[in-house]
Amino acid sequence: MRIEAYFTAAEVDPAMVDGSTVVVVDVVRATTTIVEALANGARGIYPTDSTEEAVKLASSLGRDDTLLCGERRGRKVEGFDMGNSPREFTREAVEGKRLVMSTTNGTRAFGVGQEGLRLLACAFTNLGAVARNVAGDVGLVVLCAGREEQFAIDDALCAGHLIKRVTDAVEGAHELNDGALAARELAGSRQPSRAFLSMTAGGRALVEIGLGDDLELCAQLDRHDVAAEMRDQAIVLAGT
Amino acid sequence: MRIEAYFTAAEVDPAMVDGSTVVVVDVVRATTTIVEALANGARGIYPTDSTEEAVKLASSLGRDDTLLCGERRGRKVEGFDMGNSPREFTREAVEGKRLVMSTTNGTRAFGVGQEGLRLLACAFTNLGAVARNVAGDVGLVVLCAGREEQFAIDDALCAGHLIKRVTDAVEGAHELNDGALAARELAGSRQPSRAFLSMTAGGRALVEIGLGDDLELCAQLDRHDVAAEMRDQAIVLAGT
Repeated sequence: MRIEAYFTAAEVDPAMVDGSTVVVVDVVRATTTIVEALANGARGIYPTDSTEEAVKLASSLGRDDTLLCGERRGRKVEGFDMGNSPREFTREAVEGKRLVMSTTNGTRAFGVGQEGLRLLACAFTNLGAVARNVAGDVGLVVLCAGREEQFAIDDALCAGHLIKRVTDAVEGAHELNDGALAARELAGSRQPSRAFLSMTAGGRALVEIGLGDDLELCAQLDRHDVAAEMRDQAIVLAGT
Repeated sequence: MRIEAYFTAAEVDPAMVDGSTVVVVDVVRATTTIVEALANGARGIYPTDSTEEAVKLASSLGRDDTLLCGERRGRKVEGFDMGNSPREFTREAVEGKRLVMSTTNGTRAFGVGQEGLRLLACAFTNLGAVARNVAGDVGLVVLCAGREEQFAIDDALCAGHLIKRVTDAVEGAHELNDGALAARELAGSRQPSRAFLSMTAGGRALVEIGLGDDLELCAQLDRHDVAAEMRDQAIVLAGT
């Protein structure tokens, strides 16, 4: 397999993902939250570029079974139903609902990723399911959301564990780009943990606003056996 | 110490390096070549943005003791005296000369880096000397040139070994950003070698054009005990 990883969306031209499976990673917290919501019965998650677009889309989808979710600087957007804390996305809260979501860092990555053959969302919490889903695809591009257009080590580590699982599972020679080599090397020496996430820029920012407990959930490897894939405008459950 | 690493110049706003020591890393090959030239007696290296600017600057400096150096796609620019292969920069070739240099990837990093308090050039070949020079500075920003605006693992590994040396040598708590944490982790599990560089995008491109032997030199840790620092327009020998 040809496997590439990129640590910022700025490094990726949409043409580079043409014909490839794209996996977007935003551990703290967009993709962790998406996985949590789908595992708990949400019908689909609609990522949007801005809070304004989110409000518009939610009303066109019908407000009675649609939840508006999103954060700015880590906190719930005023007037929205939910923030971006995966712990909020319980079965009671989201089952049967459509979720329109606006987040700070994940959006650009999803935008670039939509140019790919297909697009999945990956966090530590569903890493095994994603690895099985993409194993054997011709080309895989792992696109880290990063943080404020910069490298984020939590996303890089998650990308690395995904790539390690895939290359361990799929026989044959693999062609890895520099990002994929580095991410896999990182995964060889480091497991995710709350303590590790607490050292990262994204984790420290959450701790500062009192949401450090989110990191416990974000660090759980294979918490759910669900792969999440974009279909039309929405991210939904995919085959694992 | 506050230590940051960035893997692409796009991630760095000039204001972010204000008040910090900046170390630019471009292992394959700009900073390796700069170190080789200074160790072999070159008076100074003038990095430029373009071949046109290089030609102009060389004639204003005086062509009799100035060499025009640079590459495009790895090969010597037509009409220039030298390319960017560190093996060319022998004592016979460069002693007492000024070198005007135009390269593909290093230039933007040097441009951003000039906004810092001071600017050094680092490669594997002079890593120990740079580590001693910057140890104890208040803020250190290691800026990887990358390759075509993308992450380059050779630069990240060199940044990591530099950060490891500095944090091992300087007592006290260090504040590392995500890039510095990842780079140092990479350095904990990987030493530079020709074989390693041959797996990287930059290394493979050199092998393809028949310059793979450059990688042997580029991978040598502490080949020279020289630190290289920007003074006015030129990179010159600095205290170690």
